[in-house]
Amino acid sequence: MEPEEKPGTISSRRAYTGRVISLDVDTVRFPNGTTGELEMIRHPGASAVVPFLDEVAAADPRIILIRQYRYAASDYLFEIPAGRLDAGEAPDACARRELREETGYTAAELTPMTTFYTTPGFTDERIHLFAATGLLAGTAELESDEILELHTTRLSAALSMIAGGEIQDGKTMIGLMFAASFTRQG
Amino acid sequence: MEPEEKPGTISSRRAYTGRVISLDVDTVRFPNGTTGELEMIRHPGASAVVPFLDEVAAADPRIILIRQYRYAASDYLFEIPAGRLDAGEAPDACARRELREETGYTAAELTPMTTFYTTPGFTDERIHLFAATGLLAGTAELESDEILELHTTRLSAALSMIAGGEIQDGKTMIGLMFAASFTRQG
Repeated sequence: MEPEEKPGTISSRRAYTGRVISLDVDTVRFPNGTTGELEMIRHPGASAVVPFLDEVAAADPRIILIRQYRYAASDYLFEIPAGRLDAGEAPDACARRELREETGYTAAELTPMTTFYTTPGFTDERIHLFAATGLLAGTAELESDEILELHTTRLSAALSMIAGGEIQDGKTMIGLMFAASFTRQG
Repeated sequence: MEPEEKPGTISSRRAYTGRVISLDVDTVRFPNGTTGELEMIRHPGASAVVPFLDEVAAADPRIILIRQYRYAASDYLFEIPAGRLDAGEAPDACARRELREETGYTAAELTPMTTFYTTPGFTDERIHLFAATGLLAGTAELESDEILELHTTRLSAALSMIAGGEIQDGKTMIGLMFAASFTRQG
């Protein structure tokens, strides 16, 4: 393969620069040699955390969900605490910060679970997912547009909320199902 | 509450109109009465499908994954077949179409699993998730920028790929873990 045929960016045009996200229209060479234009939302990435009030390996541990107004859904959604990385911020530091800001809790221990692309067809956003244990209650520090309340539940009940369609947020579904499926095997 | 205090859109400015996505900058009233600006990617929604080569309730059924080049990841990702809704297209029709186009398979039966928001902080995209059974092999019809290969595996092996970080696509993680956790209980 000639060097100029490598897959990747041929050219990139910034179509919009925003407060949270930016939009690039990139001319791209694909691995099969074809070229095309792609709209790509550039996102700094985010961390999300499943807060455990009991040991992760406990029988049906209690966890904390937040119920948060989401303009995109015109509704309140049940979610795990999460937020985007500040410039230069490490994913674990972000997870601790968002947990504290949104719920007031600080975590004695933070365990990485996985990292995933939220919707790779049009954004490079990745979410770093953690389990938080050894929680110590404190005071939340919400931003003015964050309207949320805490909801403590058993993991099994949260899984039933996924099965029943009450939990509709992707990262929350991944966090809870991942925790239920894989964290006890460690 | 006065009518003008209802949460919702105060004004909306289309900042970018694209082929796949559009970007609105909306001035929003939140349920607590505060107002703010939000960047919101408008997306028509999508369907995704877990293709089962065996009965869903079989012990460790075989499923089909696709391995697809994703510019957002600069890499190949393992995914379930998926794609966005055409104008006026029903989610189940979209799921059948994408399954056929990406894998060649047609499904005798399509069972709705759930619907979720991929990343509701900045987009209204929802993915409608189905299980497909009774598969009949045919010929795929790929678009010029779709570079993918099929990967048949056992559901248990796919779950191990999630646990090990080999599967990094959110909708695929949700589809496989949802199928493993909830479809046998029906």
